[in-house]
Amino acid sequence: MTDQELVREAYLEAKKGYDAGGLPIGSVLVDAKGKIIARGRNQRVQTGDPTAHAEVVCLRNAGRRRDWPELTLVSSLSPCIMCAGTTLLYRIPRVIVGENKNFLGAEDLFAARGVKLAVLQDRDCIALMERFVREKPDLWNEDIGL
Amino acid sequence: MTDQELVREAYLEAKKGYDAGGLPIGSVLVDAKGKIIARGRNQRVQTGDPTAHAEVVCLRNAGRRRDWPELTLVSSLSPCIMCAGTTLLYRIPRVIVGENKNFLGAEDLFAARGVKLAVLQDRDCIALMERFVREKPDLWNEDIGL
Repeated sequence: MTDQELVREAYLEAKKGYDAGGLPIGSVLVDAKGKIIARGRNQRVQTGDPTAHAEVVCLRNAGRRRDWPELTLVSSLSPCIMCAGTTLLYRIPRVIVGENKNFLGAEDLFAARGVKLAVLQDRDCIALMERFVREKPDLWNEDIGL
Repeated sequence: MTDQELVREAYLEAKKGYDAGGLPIGSVLVDAKGKIIARGRNQRVQTGDPTAHAEVVCLRNAGRRRDWPELTLVSSLSPCIMCAGTTLLYRIPRVIVGENKNFLGAEDLFAARGVKLAVLQDRDCIALMERFVREKPDLWNEDIGL
């Protein structure tokens, strides 16, 4: 799958979250062969778990494994410092991001630690997140600790 | 409660984890009045969730709230970069650590972002972690992405 196709999969997870009344942020985890091995979407509103950002849920769904350094993490939105930290803990070397117009996460930390980052500025990811931030600013602020 | 008493509570959580065959790392979250409002211990082995470090579990148990900037996070062991990132996301301003002899986490990140850190080098925390690392080095390495 291309980076664009992978971001589309993260977007589809985000859309499911939006449709369920949650934060529209989605994530997939991809192995060295380009196969999606785990999916996740932000579940903070749905489950009441403040750590249930899309990327954390995705890694949680991936379960215990030792091949993290061969994987690529894909997210519809630039990962926050918790999700960046989780990526760095497990030495995931590559991250593909749908967009960072609505939120610029801890990309500086990725850069400092040598994680390869691609930001696609995908129009659907931007539009969905923009819509959510406009509709539910309080829920969004809570998500990023504001 | 004093810092030492709070570390003792984190240690007791760690000990429960050890007794259950898991990683002996525990955490508590304390409000502005010094009251423990949430507890957690590493559940990675017990639940198969790679994100279930003690501090993440503790914040998960704290649920959705808006008073994070008034709280103190206590951990029996120096927090890794995922747990440090989670602390920073929610702007928790103060962290008390049992020990950093067995593992030095992302304390540099705390320092860079102005988080107040106290490391107590508690003898019980050191001894329990040391014992676990000696007994189950593989489980420990997996916990820190090695």
